[in-house]
Amino acid sequence: MSKLLRHFLNFRHCHRSFSQRKDDSFAQCPERVFSGIQPTGVPHLGNYVGAIRNWVRMQERYDSILLSIVDLHSITVQQNPAELRENIQVMAACLIACGINPDKTILFQQSSVKEHAELCWILGCLCSLPRLEHLPQWRDKSKKVSDPKVGLYTYPILQSADIMLYKSTVVPVGEDQLTHLELARDLARAFNRQYGTLFPACNSYIGDVPKIRSLKDPSSKMSKSDNNAASRIDLTDSSSTVRDKIAKAVTDAVSKDITFDPELRPGLSNLIDICSALTGKSSEDIVKLTQDKGMDKKTFKEFVTETVNESIQPISSEMQRILSDRGHLRSILKQGQERASVLAEETIKHVKTLVGLS
Amino acid sequence: MSKLLRHFLNFRHCHRSFSQRKDDSFAQCPERVFSGIQPTGVPHLGNYVGAIRNWVRMQERYDSILLSIVDLHSITVQQNPAELRENIQVMAACLIACGINPDKTILFQQSSVKEHAELCWILGCLCSLPRLEHLPQWRDKSKKVSDPKVGLYTYPILQSADIMLYKSTVVPVGEDQLTHLELARDLARAFNRQYGTLFPACNSYIGDVPKIRSLKDPSSKMSKSDNNAASRIDLTDSSSTVRDKIAKAVTDAVSKDITFDPELRPGLSNLIDICSALTGKSSEDIVKLTQDKGMDKKTFKEFVTETVNESIQPISSEMQRILSDRGHLRSILKQGQERASVLAEETIKHVKTLVGLS
Repeated sequence: MSKLLRHFLNFRHCHRSFSQRKDDSFAQCPERVFSGIQPTGVPHLGNYVGAIRNWVRMQERYDSILLSIVDLHSITVQQNPAELRENIQVMAACLIACGINPDKTILFQQSSVKEHAELCWILGCLCSLPRLEHLPQWRDKSKKVSDPKVGLYTYPILQSADIMLYKSTVVPVGEDQLTHLELARDLARAFNRQYGTLFPACNSYIGDVPKIRSLKDPSSKMSKSDNNAASRIDLTDSSSTVRDKIAKAVTDAVSKDITFDPELRPGLSNLIDICSALTGKSSEDIVKLTQDKGMDKKTFKEFVTETVNESIQPISSEMQRILSDRGHLRSILKQGQERASVLAEETIKHVKTLVGLS
Repeated sequence: MSKLLRHFLNFRHCHRSFSQRKDDSFAQCPERVFSGIQPTGVPHLGNYVGAIRNWVRMQERYDSILLSIVDLHSITVQQNPAELRENIQVMAACLIACGINPDKTILFQQSSVKEHAELCWILGCLCSLPRLEHLPQWRDKSKKVSDPKVGLYTYPILQSADIMLYKSTVVPVGEDQLTHLELARDLARAFNRQYGTLFPACNSYIGDVPKIRSLKDPSSKMSKSDNNAASRIDLTDSSSTVRDKIAKAVTDAVSKDITFDPELRPGLSNLIDICSALTGKSSEDIVKLTQDKGMDKKTFKEFVTETVNESIQPISSEMQRILSDRGHLRSILKQGQERASVLAEETIKHVKTLVGLS
């Protein structure tokens, strides 16, 4: 079994737990969480229950959390500047509306902390070319883009820099990012070996998060890149849009009853998953509830609509409120930048001394 | 004829002149010169007459000159941190000792201006992979290094950032760097096209500089990378070391007379070139002088020794003086960093606005 696979299974096994493999010299280090999200516009329900809500919950568990809107990653594919600028603010507002507390979490824009690019350059001088070429995401992405740029190729190095700059020890990631986290671990080890121990080992955190699927094709996950907007619920969708999208969500003709069977009834089971994720009840409890109330598919869809709207309409209103005071929003990001910079400057200073640059 | 070759021949033709191909929108821009030198230790005589002295002379011609000790380029191959740190100071001291006036030229350490790495990342998102792969220097270098790193592959992008960060219009380069300058021109055009005009076209400057050759193998140029230290004269060589090296320099048995014939008598002609470069006299005048004074090879080598020592011993003493006050040297580099940062911050601010990062 590959090391990575073992690593991965280990995390799957101990949901919301962590690897114990730590460098002894960092045994006394407090845990520090780092995560990044690209400013791709308004997040959808899948992003919310799959990532954002996880970060919100981690605030209760960890004293030191950084959450970065990783705009330098966004520009590895072509962006419209005006849209990108707006999307950065929208993402910040959304995260706060979802429950990220900027007094607790250091919420900041990646490009506003210059040390990310600096550390990225230095780590690029430790990373061999084949190491990047073999990353599965590169192999996939470079096929999809017609003329892939150097930034798309080297962005896993920037990700490593993002993590290492704050000496992060815990990194919530999707499963598709585990190979990139392994690169960060390798680069930290390479740096420590060549220049002296500075970086702790970072460990992945894969929360026990439900996977929300497309409303139109439940074989795929809910995704921003799906051209059909009806396949997903955006956190800013109005109550009636949510009602329409759920009413038109793909189910099946297997039975009139509501049952949970992801294999045979993926569309219906996805709607049960959504209710389960938003209410905290198990899928069995949701099914039991529909039976107790004698719901058919139509009335169940109304119940799903109500459940979704109860969760997202307050987020949407709060987002609008936050976005209506841009000055205050900017001041929140500025404060995040200042707090992140204190940590980043300290690390880069040590890095430069060890490398011989100062 | 390739565009690059035409470009190159144009510069060869008009020594110390410049391409007139300028974007009209920058016609009013004052010329700004940027050049970089890696901190590879004490420069040798070839570096002095081939590059450094050229920069010193440019100070009389241009109002705005930046000269960067490009330490971020150095680390694209493995470095000893203590040696690198010392070499940065040695290079700064040497440049000043050679006549770089830090009140006139902005002399600074590349890594001390964070915006170089920032712009490098942004430009990497505009540069296609094949564009880098086809650069002849990469093809050569990647063969010589056993496990080439990503930094070695992407360093021409950092060079472009170095130049563009100061909106430089004139870049003194060796002929081997012309393809890299062409990359900087391409990236400037790509940026201007995609985001709006910000960067002027930069033009190469190939001074009419003599090529000084190895004292041991005049078919090669004098080089730091030659394992035989007797093949070159370092600017800190003592009078007696210079005497020894020149006494043992390869000449020939063609004739007892001193004649200039680079094809048939490359070693002797190289010594004439050295005298010519250091005295400003033509090779014909040097030969005539040896004839007038009835010099044989032995007495000519004494004359060469004297000529070299007259040039380099004052530089060496001045270097030692500068290096004996590290605090002052650091303050000079700090002042350079501050002056460069003012320009760099202004550019990166515009870049970020145009790209949509701020």
